[in-house]
Amino acid sequence: MKDYFPIFDWSKNYGRADFEADSLAAVIVTIMLIPQSLAYAMLAGLPPQVGLYASMLPLVAYMIFGTSHALAVGPVAVVSLMTAAALGNIAATGSAGYLAGAVMLAFLSGVILLVMGVLKLGFLAYFLSQPVISGFITASGLLIAVSQLDHLLGLDVSGRSLPALLQGLWLNLPQTNFSTLFVGGTSLAALALIRSGLQPLLLKAGLSDRAAGNLAKAGPLAVILLSIGAVVVFDMQGRIAVTGEIPRGLPPLQFPVFDRDLIRLLLVPALLISIIGFVESVSVGQTLAAKAGKHIQPDHELVGLGSANLVASLSGGYPVTGGFARSVVNFDAGAATPASGGLTALGIALATLFFTPYLYFLPKAVLAATIIIAVLSLVDLSPLKASWTFSRSDFIASLGTIAVTLLVGVEAGVATGVLASLGLYLYKASQPHIAEIGQVPGTQHFRNVKRHDVITSPKVLSLRIDENMFFANARYIENYILSRLDGDEGLEHVTMNFASVSLIDSSGQAVLHSVNKLLSKRGASLSFTELKGPVEDRLKRGSLLQELSGSVYLHHYEAMTALDPAVFPPLRQARLEAQEAADGSHI
Amino acid sequence: MKDYFPIFDWSKNYGRADFEADSLAAVIVTIMLIPQSLAYAMLAGLPPQVGLYASMLPLVAYMIFGTSHALAVGPVAVVSLMTAAALGNIAATGSAGYLAGAVMLAFLSGVILLVMGVLKLGFLAYFLSQPVISGFITASGLLIAVSQLDHLLGLDVSGRSLPALLQGLWLNLPQTNFSTLFVGGTSLAALALIRSGLQPLLLKAGLSDRAAGNLAKAGPLAVILLSIGAVVVFDMQGRIAVTGEIPRGLPPLQFPVFDRDLIRLLLVPALLISIIGFVESVSVGQTLAAKAGKHIQPDHELVGLGSANLVASLSGGYPVTGGFARSVVNFDAGAATPASGGLTALGIALATLFFTPYLYFLPKAVLAATIIIAVLSLVDLSPLKASWTFSRSDFIASLGTIAVTLLVGVEAGVATGVLASLGLYLYKASQPHIAEIGQVPGTQHFRNVKRHDVITSPKVLSLRIDENMFFANARYIENYILSRLDGDEGLEHVTMNFASVSLIDSSGQAVLHSVNKLLSKRGASLSFTELKGPVEDRLKRGSLLQELSGSVYLHHYEAMTALDPAVFPPLRQARLEAQEAADGSHI
Repeated sequence: MKDYFPIFDWSKNYGRADFEADSLAAVIVTIMLIPQSLAYAMLAGLPPQVGLYASMLPLVAYMIFGTSHALAVGPVAVVSLMTAAALGNIAATGSAGYLAGAVMLAFLSGVILLVMGVLKLGFLAYFLSQPVISGFITASGLLIAVSQLDHLLGLDVSGRSLPALLQGLWLNLPQTNFSTLFVGGTSLAALALIRSGLQPLLLKAGLSDRAAGNLAKAGPLAVILLSIGAVVVFDMQGRIAVTGEIPRGLPPLQFPVFDRDLIRLLLVPALLISIIGFVESVSVGQTLAAKAGKHIQPDHELVGLGSANLVASLSGGYPVTGGFARSVVNFDAGAATPASGGLTALGIALATLFFTPYLYFLPKAVLAATIIIAVLSLVDLSPLKASWTFSRSDFIASLGTIAVTLLVGVEAGVATGVLASLGLYLYKASQPHIAEIGQVPGTQHFRNVKRHDVITSPKVLSLRIDENMFFANARYIENYILSRLDGDEGLEHVTMNFASVSLIDSSGQAVLHSVNKLLSKRGASLSFTELKGPVEDRLKRGSLLQELSGSVYLHHYEAMTALDPAVFPPLRQARLEAQEAADGSHI
Repeated sequence: MKDYFPIFDWSKNYGRADFEADSLAAVIVTIMLIPQSLAYAMLAGLPPQVGLYASMLPLVAYMIFGTSHALAVGPVAVVSLMTAAALGNIAATGSAGYLAGAVMLAFLSGVILLVMGVLKLGFLAYFLSQPVISGFITASGLLIAVSQLDHLLGLDVSGRSLPALLQGLWLNLPQTNFSTLFVGGTSLAALALIRSGLQPLLLKAGLSDRAAGNLAKAGPLAVILLSIGAVVVFDMQGRIAVTGEIPRGLPPLQFPVFDRDLIRLLLVPALLISIIGFVESVSVGQTLAAKAGKHIQPDHELVGLGSANLVASLSGGYPVTGGFARSVVNFDAGAATPASGGLTALGIALATLFFTPYLYFLPKAVLAATIIIAVLSLVDLSPLKASWTFSRSDFIASLGTIAVTLLVGVEAGVATGVLASLGLYLYKASQPHIAEIGQVPGTQHFRNVKRHDVITSPKVLSLRIDENMFFANARYIENYILSRLDGDEGLEHVTMNFASVSLIDSSGQAVLHSVNKLLSKRGASLSFTELKGPVEDRLKRGSLLQELSGSVYLHHYEAMTALDPAVFPPLRQARLEAQEAADGSHI
């Protein structure tokens, strides 16, 4: 049971202290989540209540199936942007088809994540390399921030790439609504100040660390309440866009409409949303778990997030995942168990039941300001800088992801990133480093003749292939060895050191066959050393080892003492000489 | 000069003996090529003269730029099938657009191969693994054979997949033309007998090996002449399909028509044709060169085949490459230099000038029989069987290629093969083998504790990661190490052996950072051993080596003597003890 329901793991010791900690964290996250859920629903092109619906039952599902103690599940910025990109292709914003598409996207995403979890396919997500993910998140953050400028200016601009958005804003700039700009700009400034300056100010005013931190987190709520008040008091309703009516009450429970065409169109976007959501969530979850000296289990996380998305679709929501910012707040606020998520869901449910009428006058520009402040924290170019120093191909993959995400769109950006990182890796693997090796004096260890002062034999060529031998590099390796042999007619033996070869396929084996034949023809022998178990097992299934002109040696030193004892004295003699050298009797 | 024109390499020593050998080979290849060029043009859906045109100037171009002494360039079966598949999408067979498309395909293929040659991108072709290529060739051979059955039955059936072809044949079977079937069937039987039985028969009759071989190669010509004679004598022209009028004279020289839409449509097929053609050609060339103790240079081959295709398009031909069967015949007939190709071109030119009228009555069914006999030698399931034993993933890639080529078509088949082999490779690399290692007694060599009787330390955990550390396996490795550490609280040191790690990226480095931090927290140390030069260089660019809680050791034995000298006595002492043991003083 515990294997499928991690909730039984932590609930049996659940105590009063845990409940108090979880409740406090839940209150703080709820206050943060109310405006965010409305804002992200707006970003996804959905009615505001969809954001609230996605913040109730999914949190309960994650509480039951998830393993992170701090992860705050719900609507998040990047997934909302991806939802908008996916649905923009199939229906007009605001239409019934658009809403049905969002629900189906959550359903498909839930099924995909659950299947991946049950089949333990979490490793697939790792094909998104860190440079690609960080590039994608950064570019998405920028794209989201720019996509909200129209709300801030009181315009209506749509577009999925940076150039399209900027062009739209530029062309519509003359229609700027200055009332909206005033309210939005003021909120943006206030939110920015709260984020950077409120906590230090409260600390100076004598509040405790904790009180100051928690109060600062309530700051955005104050901005929202003030903006609502301003709209009512100054009767701005006709002049600026407001959230409008949000249906009061709990989400309707119903199955999504199954439409084969719709499913076909949404399958790939759902896959991308699932994987991006999973990767984002697992990164946050792992970071926070490590801080607390705990673990999360990626395959359980797939089930947790999958069930969260499934119930999101059953309760009128849209795709959800574990968000970065809210999870950190949840952690800092002291969340002790996944129950804090359940309590947050309760808070949102209460808000939906009792507070929605008050949100009618909430200006959309303020929601846009909330989004902009939230996503700018996602923009981080430092991994790009680090990869420039550490790995040029990581840098290219990251920069490519950023550029394509901004210039073309989110889906093309992710695809580019994955293909670029796989392509660059395979390119490197297809042209492996091959070292000629010799003995490090006084040891039984062999290293590259170009980097170390080593002992070599004129009769024996020792080669170390620094890569698996497989179809993509088999011919390269063959060409290298053949041209190396061309110039060296005095060779009697070639020993290949397999310490770096962990996999070998038919093509790799074919190369060894051909090198073996060539050397036999020349009257020279081919030997293998340091074959790893799995590779030796594999070679035993073919005929190579029987046809080998030389032998297979456990380690390279053994081969060299056998093939050229004049240069490499046998173990016993070597020990004696080394001993004498160490005793100083020779020097 | 010699670098760009390999012809200067061999022509300076070109003597009378070479000329005689090349001429004989050219005569034999010409006799084989005349019907094949007509037949393959038919297979490609093109007028017969296009096959002849593709057998003149391209051979001259390859003679100048190519490096194989035996490769017979010209129209080949698989490339003809791929040409038909590519052009079937854009124009009706027999239309002017279809012909223009074929010329453009040759042009694009020429440009692609030349660019690959100049940029030395030949390695890209190696991403087609041997199992994929052999599967593709086998499936193409089957598909071609079945696609010719309609000519043999006097029907007109088209289709690009096995099910479509079989269905078409089945539905049209009642319309079978029995005159055609009689002529075609007889030719097929005759050709099959000639292939298998003529040479032994001639040998028995007292001919020399060489004469019998060469005469057997002229056998198919006899079948063709007899069939032409039969059509004329029995006046069958109205009852069976014949080749018809072939324009007399040399090919027209002209530039292809450049049409942006056409180029866009043909770019991917041209790329596939180029790569498949290059790989087929290089395999044959390398095999034959090795037999003669010679080399071919893949990048020159790209230039040679590229220029051959370019002049094919300038002289009204279609894509060409080095064919398997004719090259073997050329080699067996004693071709000494690439000049045999030039002489073959001369033979084809003479035939085109003087013999085309006689080909008017050549039955298409006989051409179909020629093709069927030629391609059935391509069908070879033994590599599939071999891969079943040697490598299950090679088997899957090969079987997938065969299945998709037969069931969907050639382009989908190649794509499936490449993606399957890359996917399977990356899947294996994403779940690497990780071994716990210990010292092989009496050596400084460390091996897997599960496979060898080795000496280990209770305080030091030695891990060997059997794969590059990169984004696709970083988390897997991290999870493995973390769960391994979970159960072992008594550990004081972890040493990671990097002998099998040839590449490391940011994600791999991040794992090492996190393991290092975790161990530091537990008061344990992390050390690295046997770091290869390129990997150590890479790590030095980051901060890992400075932050490392342990040290970097040249070899694993050195690390163990430093970390647990009680179990692993330092080198000097070890030598002494080993010496004593060897002297028998202890035992």
